[in-house]
Amino acid sequence: MTPPEPSDELIADVFARDCASRSTLEAIAGKWGILALAALSESSFRFNALRRRVDGVSEKMLAQTLQTLERDGMVYRDVQATIPPRVEYSLTPLGRKVAEKIVDLIELVEAAVPEVRTAQARYDAGSTG
Amino acid sequence: MTPPEPSDELIADVFARDCASRSTLEAIAGKWGILALAALSESSFRFNALRRRVDGVSEKMLAQTLQTLERDGMVYRDVQATIPPRVEYSLTPLGRKVAEKIVDLIELVEAAVPEVRTAQARYDAGSTG
Repeated sequence: MTPPEPSDELIADVFARDCASRSTLEAIAGKWGILALAALSESSFRFNALRRRVDGVSEKMLAQTLQTLERDGMVYRDVQATIPPRVEYSLTPLGRKVAEKIVDLIELVEAAVPEVRTAQARYDAGSTG
Repeated sequence: MTPPEPSDELIADVFARDCASRSTLEAIAGKWGILALAALSESSFRFNALRRRVDGVSEKMLAQTLQTLERDGMVYRDVQATIPPRVEYSLTPLGRKVAEKIVDLIELVEAAVPEVRTAQARYDAGSTG
C-alpha cells in the first residue's frame, strides 16, 4: 500500500498492463488517435474540417479521441472568443514528437500496400487450397 | 466499374476509409498488434510465451492478432514437425521494418509518461475546478 515511487517513471514498461504508458499508447495507437495525430501534423484544424480529413470517423469518436489526446497533453484546444466561438485543434510539442513517429509508420504502411496485398493473396490461397 | 488501376497503389492514402493501407494500419495499430510486433522484435516466441510477454491479452485476441499479422505478411508462423508440433512466431522482413517504427513510438511514449501525467493532472483539475 505504499505509494508508487517517482523512480517508477524511469522504468515505464508498455508491456505491463497497469503501466501508465500502456493507457497513453492506447489513446494514440487506436485507429482514430493515429489518424487524428497524423492529420494535425499537417495543420491545425477546426472540428468539422478534421472530421472530413479523417474519412469515416463519427462525430462522437472524434470528440472522444480529441478529448483524450488533449488530456494526455498531445493536442491543444484553442477556443477563440468570437461569436460563435471558433475552436481549433493543434498539436502540442509532445503531440508533434509523437505524430512524427506515427507519420513515419503510416508512410511505411502506405508504401507496403502492394507487398501486403501479395501476402494476403498467398495466405488466402493457402487457407482455401 | 473499371477495375482499380495498378497505379492506385502508388497513391495509397491512409486517410481514405477504403484504402487498403487503412485496414493494414488498423491491424498493426490496434493495442495488441502494436504490442505483439514490439515483443516479436525482441525475439521469436511460442504462443504461450508471447501471451505472457504481452501482459493482459486474451488467448482469443492474441490468436486473432497473430493471424491478421500473418495474413498481412508481417509475422511468420513456423510449425515444426515434432510431437507435439512446436509453433513459433517471428517477424518477416516487412514485419521487422514495421516493428522498428513501433518500437520508436513506444520508447517515446514510455519516456513521456511523466509529461503525460502532468498534463492529465492539469486537465482534470481544470475540468472539476
